[in-house]
Amino acid sequence: MLTVGVARQRERLAGLVPDDVLSDADSLAVHHAHAVWSCLTEPGDGVAGSLIAELGPVHALEVARGAGGSTSAALEAGRRRWQARADTIDDAVDRARRVQARLIVPGTSEWPSTVDGLGVHGPRAIWTRGDLDALGGGRPAVALVGARASTSYGEHVTADLATQLARTGVTIVSGGAYGIDGIAHRASLSAGGVTVAVLAGGVDRAYPAGHAELLARIAQGPGVVVAEVPCGTAPTKWRFLQRNRLIAALSGATVVVEAGWRSGSLNTAGHAAALGRPLGAVPGPVTCAASAGCHRLLREYDARCVTSADEVRELLGGEGPDYRSTSDRVDDTTRILDALSPRSPRSADDVARRAGFAPAEARGMLALLELEGRAYRGPDGWRRGSTAR
Amino acid sequence: MLTVGVARQRERLAGLVPDDVLSDADSLAVHHAHAVWSCLTEPGDGVAGSLIAELGPVHALEVARGAGGSTSAALEAGRRRWQARADTIDDAVDRARRVQARLIVPGTSEWPSTVDGLGVHGPRAIWTRGDLDALGGGRPAVALVGARASTSYGEHVTADLATQLARTGVTIVSGGAYGIDGIAHRASLSAGGVTVAVLAGGVDRAYPAGHAELLARIAQGPGVVVAEVPCGTAPTKWRFLQRNRLIAALSGATVVVEAGWRSGSLNTAGHAAALGRPLGAVPGPVTCAASAGCHRLLREYDARCVTSADEVRELLGGEGPDYRSTSDRVDDTTRILDALSPRSPRSADDVARRAGFAPAEARGMLALLELEGRAYRGPDGWRRGSTAR
Repeated sequence: MLTVGVARQRERLAGLVPDDVLSDADSLAVHHAHAVWSCLTEPGDGVAGSLIAELGPVHALEVARGAGGSTSAALEAGRRRWQARADTIDDAVDRARRVQARLIVPGTSEWPSTVDGLGVHGPRAIWTRGDLDALGGGRPAVALVGARASTSYGEHVTADLATQLARTGVTIVSGGAYGIDGIAHRASLSAGGVTVAVLAGGVDRAYPAGHAELLARIAQGPGVVVAEVPCGTAPTKWRFLQRNRLIAALSGATVVVEAGWRSGSLNTAGHAAALGRPLGAVPGPVTCAASAGCHRLLREYDARCVTSADEVRELLGGEGPDYRSTSDRVDDTTRILDALSPRSPRSADDVARRAGFAPAEARGMLALLELEGRAYRGPDGWRRGSTAR
Repeated sequence: MLTVGVARQRERLAGLVPDDVLSDADSLAVHHAHAVWSCLTEPGDGVAGSLIAELGPVHALEVARGAGGSTSAALEAGRRRWQARADTIDDAVDRARRVQARLIVPGTSEWPSTVDGLGVHGPRAIWTRGDLDALGGGRPAVALVGARASTSYGEHVTADLATQLARTGVTIVSGGAYGIDGIAHRASLSAGGVTVAVLAGGVDRAYPAGHAELLARIAQGPGVVVAEVPCGTAPTKWRFLQRNRLIAALSGATVVVEAGWRSGSLNTAGHAAALGRPLGAVPGPVTCAASAGCHRLLREYDARCVTSADEVRELLGGEGPDYRSTSDRVDDTTRILDALSPRSPRSADDVARRAGFAPAEARGMLALLELEGRAYRGPDGWRRGSTAR
């Protein structure tokens, strides 16, 4: 049931979008199509993104249903995976209504334009619980993220940074997890600031369960709980990794406060770097494993050493975020893959030189490609994965 | 008594130089002239350095005495300050002999060629107590320096780094001070490594007095206590700052382990940067003032974040030290001063761009010029001092 009549569209979106959308057939169709796309796709589905960028969400949905369009293998594969979820929209909107969630779609005033930096891999829609204005309004936003296994040092620094930033009108974005994320949200709330929790699963599911109350408090405001996946969606490994890109994309800068050597926060940091957003890391004792990831960011990602709220503000105040177009973004990945060999390992600096990027940019993109299995890091350097393209 | 006969030269240097020097009139004259110059000048005396670079130490000494040479104002001023110390050599060599110190002069096999990176501002001679081979031999050397007011964290990390580096044949260079310096020396000794203590006063004076036993142990080897000022010289503020440049120049890389916001270690770090030597800083808790200087180095000096002995070795293994000639070095300073305005403040990056240096190089040189009062750092950027040239 990918395409349905106006009445059905209105029924589905009642309570989830502004009333004036419900009474405007064109706007309703666009909102509905975005909602459907959000249900059909996994985060980061570039085939869907390209189709929508090319045709708009409504026409793209007709093509997804099988009506016309090219017959590329990618599109055919897309159609198969999308069709498998054709019936999920009704459950998703029912669940959303039950928790008073709202739907935000691209091209509207509530849409956070910062995520457009993700290009065709960006979210199809954003489901929210809480203050709609929290996402946008031109307010500066910083991602404060870090390890679940935080130390009292990391928690202290996080609380301090979040409090001081929140007091001066900076939105604190984080992932709602235990440890650093939770402290960042709590401190922001205590300071009366705006905070955004970005979930890997649906906003109707409190994850982690132990943070149900915290997430509810955030939704009561001033703040918002958001997800790009529809309600009812379980958080999975892939969705956590994609959630991390959304945290980075929603923020003018990303600061990692405490992170182990292989912490998921480094993934968020890699996304920030790949997006061209400023990246900061808070140092800690070199004797503490909980700071090893931050030191790695300082060494390998050219992250800026951050020791105070003022220095976070400096990060935000630097060069503006890089909101380049989809095609530029795709070209960047292609250039990096072109600079890699499947056989000869190459250093990140070498790859940067060959591809014409700054070393930090190349490292950020390599980290993402590694995550996607399209590049591999060995003891002697980087190689291209055999299924890289 | 700047110039004396061969017999007097031999009498003065007996026991301080190899016997074959005493029996070779030419070699003796050169050694003697360098020793005299060491007594006549304050560390960093560029006028003396230029004169010696141009004429050699023996002829330069005749010119210093007033025999010929140009009649520039700088030379006249130099003559006046050198003449004031014409009688100090005898006391210096007597004191040196009493503590079994040795004299090392430029152009000999014992001379550490790394200090030639200092150009005309380099040491005129090096007075040593201990193992003569400790300074050279192509052994990799790293300066481990830091705050006197160290914390147990900093001491732990220093001991760990020094032990592991010493065990793998890396010479540990430091300043013999309380705190980080002392720990670096002690750990190196305990590990059976070679350590070099660079003093601001004469090697016959244990400074600080509480480290008399430590310095004696270093001199017993494997290690050496060195100073560019002759025996009997008291450590002064200026000599500490100049001593710091010698620590940086004797080392292939400089690592600051723990340092307050205005620690003297930052001065050593600035010298390392200006010399084009790799600079590392060990991060620590941002809540600890004893690490604030290290974080400053990471932020402002582009120091490399160092968390392990392996990472220190990486620093040493990078691009070779920059042993450029005197005139290049002087030109660099001129280029930086040219890029500064006495009125309009300019950012370090702007200065780097105007002068054609990497930002880290420019920041290192600016830090040194600030130290010398030739450049000033204001809230809006860097300005040239009115007596800059």
